[in-house]
Amino acid sequence: MLMKTPTQSLTEQLSVRFGERIRNRLLAPGARLPSVRQCALQHGVSPSTVVAAYDQLLAQGLVEARKNRGFFVREVAPVGAEAVKAGEAAAMEVAAGNWTTAHWFAARGAARGSPPVNATALIRGMFHKISDKPQPGMGVLPPQWLESTFMPAAVRKVTSTRALQEYSLQYGEPLGDGALRRLLVKKLASLNVHTGPENILTTVGATHALDIVSRTLLRPGDPVMVEEPGWAVEFARLSALGMHILPVPRRADGPDLEVMARYCEVHKPKLYVSVSVFHNPTGYCLSPGSAHRILQLANQHNFHIVEDDTYSHIAPEHATRLTALDGLQRTIYVSGFAKILAPNWRIGFLAAPQGLVEQLLDTKLLATLTTPALLEKALALCIEQGQLRRHAERIRTRLDAARARSVKLALSAGCTFAADPVGLFGWVDTGVDTDALSQRMLDEGYLLAPGALFHAERKPSTLMRINFATTQDATFWRTFERIVKQSR
Amino acid sequence: MLMKTPTQSLTEQLSVRFGERIRNRLLAPGARLPSVRQCALQHGVSPSTVVAAYDQLLAQGLVEARKNRGFFVREVAPVGAEAVKAGEAAAMEVAAGNWTTAHWFAARGAARGSPPVNATALIRGMFHKISDKPQPGMGVLPPQWLESTFMPAAVRKVTSTRALQEYSLQYGEPLGDGALRRLLVKKLASLNVHTGPENILTTVGATHALDIVSRTLLRPGDPVMVEEPGWAVEFARLSALGMHILPVPRRADGPDLEVMARYCEVHKPKLYVSVSVFHNPTGYCLSPGSAHRILQLANQHNFHIVEDDTYSHIAPEHATRLTALDGLQRTIYVSGFAKILAPNWRIGFLAAPQGLVEQLLDTKLLATLTTPALLEKALALCIEQGQLRRHAERIRTRLDAARARSVKLALSAGCTFAADPVGLFGWVDTGVDTDALSQRMLDEGYLLAPGALFHAERKPSTLMRINFATTQDATFWRTFERIVKQSR
Repeated sequence: MLMKTPTQSLTEQLSVRFGERIRNRLLAPGARLPSVRQCALQHGVSPSTVVAAYDQLLAQGLVEARKNRGFFVREVAPVGAEAVKAGEAAAMEVAAGNWTTAHWFAARGAARGSPPVNATALIRGMFHKISDKPQPGMGVLPPQWLESTFMPAAVRKVTSTRALQEYSLQYGEPLGDGALRRLLVKKLASLNVHTGPENILTTVGATHALDIVSRTLLRPGDPVMVEEPGWAVEFARLSALGMHILPVPRRADGPDLEVMARYCEVHKPKLYVSVSVFHNPTGYCLSPGSAHRILQLANQHNFHIVEDDTYSHIAPEHATRLTALDGLQRTIYVSGFAKILAPNWRIGFLAAPQGLVEQLLDTKLLATLTTPALLEKALALCIEQGQLRRHAERIRTRLDAARARSVKLALSAGCTFAADPVGLFGWVDTGVDTDALSQRMLDEGYLLAPGALFHAERKPSTLMRINFATTQDATFWRTFERIVKQSR
Repeated sequence: MLMKTPTQSLTEQLSVRFGERIRNRLLAPGARLPSVRQCALQHGVSPSTVVAAYDQLLAQGLVEARKNRGFFVREVAPVGAEAVKAGEAAAMEVAAGNWTTAHWFAARGAARGSPPVNATALIRGMFHKISDKPQPGMGVLPPQWLESTFMPAAVRKVTSTRALQEYSLQYGEPLGDGALRRLLVKKLASLNVHTGPENILTTVGATHALDIVSRTLLRPGDPVMVEEPGWAVEFARLSALGMHILPVPRRADGPDLEVMARYCEVHKPKLYVSVSVFHNPTGYCLSPGSAHRILQLANQHNFHIVEDDTYSHIAPEHATRLTALDGLQRTIYVSGFAKILAPNWRIGFLAAPQGLVEQLLDTKLLATLTTPALLEKALALCIEQGQLRRHAERIRTRLDAARARSVKLALSAGCTFAADPVGLFGWVDTGVDTDALSQRMLDEGYLLAPGALFHAERKPSTLMRINFATTQDATFWRTFERIVKQSR
């Protein structure tokens, strides 16, 4: 409910609110604004106030009116004045049966008529502070959970004048800090992945590692298999690189192997992107049998696998990982420390087969040259002294308790779990369209992660991903229940 | 001259030396090893020792023998077993007149017969410690020059437990640290570039900024104009991304405008990549007249410009910059702090026109999510307190003195300057092939930057780039003269 203030009219408040949301991508390009009647009801204002606010957005170029259909968020303007040209080009390519090029144009957001997947929406939202409330759509643990005394102590140890001058004033090791890579070798050995420090490459977070792998192994138009539902950034990056995404349905025990086999016959994919353990958003873990059959398929059809083990620190060591079975023959292992130590440090890494390391390193050099040693050295200290391992154990215990509470609250709020609740995320069926629900919950100060974001084609869904660490609060679920009831 | 040791035969020493050089890309794929006779003479060993060493390299798969032509460093194996297939595909594309696609295959290093530009060779070399001697081929100032007390002090100020927990435990601002961006606005204003913090985006070094720009504005096959000679990493990155590189000859006052105009007519390039001030490797600075005409051309033919101002801290504020004339309409300004503060911190940034910021930010998010705030905050302190500016002044004075000494020594060693010596780099004519010279100088512990590295097609050259800060030592020039004499 909006309240008039001395400095801002209701119309202004409403248009400012929508304007911010559009600029921060919390309302994605192509999304429809609520109808005038709906919006008036929701905010307790008159329809004429809503009309005036929408007119302001129209004047600002943020939305467009479509005849008899309402107001829609405008697409981001393509580079230069080439929107129309690109749209025409895409149409021509489609007419010529050149799907690969057409796909590229579509991915660039330039093809008209069919709004492309705007997969950066949630990501942008995740960086925007909605309110002080715990955010159910968040992808990381709350900062309070990550607080420790050992992390600041480690930073101070590597920031003596002498240490700083030693490693800050030159570019540093292309593969990344040597001490850290030697410790990662041990960490990998505990997961039954045996390799050497010369096969490990540090990166600017796991995201950068996945980016390096895609850029090295694929060229535009190449078919790549990605699990669906899956992480929005992965779909968005592969789209932006112009790749041909082949979504593989993810089941409880692994990917749908029949679909994979068919893709292999028809498209000859080059790469399979997989989160084996605590899959995002479902929490599913790969079974040993599936792992074995995936590797058989990979050998038979000659594709690489990149295994994203982002949740390794909160997952059991004995969980099945493709890399452990394969022994780094066809698999590239990727992980990072955003989920357990410090999201902003942006430290990730990859471990790759001998024959690929040099090419992956070239891509790293061309993209960023080296990575900052200060943070890598501090992380090495945290690992070396066993503090990170003990910290992870404490977080696992805390997460188990939070999950138990969250599950109970979610069930009483009328949700069902589409997947058994484990790990960091719950995959929850709300019974209502979660895209619309997310917009309504934003008004209440909550960021949700609607199911559509985890699909390559962003199709509407009644599912959403919840973060167990941020949904153990009854206040959220009361608001949720109220809004869901109104949405029915 | 090699000497037999109790643990290693001469053959082993020789094969280990070449093996390391190949693995570190100091001998690029496709490069020819010295003839057996030459090599025997150079290292003071018998021809049979050389033959045995080359045989070992052959057995290790590092080199290949070509009938009647000698030994060549093997190409990096293309991904999977697709070398031949890719080569055939490239040949077919060429036959079909599809140059763009053919170019892509060639750039991937998969086309057989014509070894591709291996543009990561120097870069890899630059990260490899050759010896303790000052390295004439280096691209940065020696670490001793960069030492300061204010940098470690700034780091300590931002690494209190409280500060670390505040900004390490969340992803952070997508655009980069706000305080740093506000200071960069002031820095840009001093260069007559007027913008706001919301148009600035921090990156993992200037390299990452250039990568983000290419990925956002170009799609594979797009024509892009790049100055030649120019920086090896730029050619390599654009090649790896599959772009169609149009090399524009760089003259003393700017690019060859006739060539640019012709490219505009024929190819309709999307982007022009330029180092206006203290151009690498020549040191040339753009004239106001050239700048004006470039912008006229850009408006007429609708292309963007990315201005790489990496050397801004050692360059005069009044130097002509395209961005200042254009007012961030068609230009994107890129710079960083590797040349003045801390190469390993990997802090760069870009300032972009309003309409492009969102798209550039999307690319940043998809590639690395955010960037580490700790280093950005420390850098902000260094700038805020005026210490970085005073540090840069001291370095400019020191560099002027070093340049005067280096120029004198270079001239007495028989070199001529292909461009007036200013800035960090000298563009020097040695009168002999600098590719071969570089290999000989490596044996003496010196890394050179041969002219071939600054060309899109890596053609042989008698030119080389020297770093004025590392060539003021008479010992280097004596060795240089001796080797040049032997090379004639």
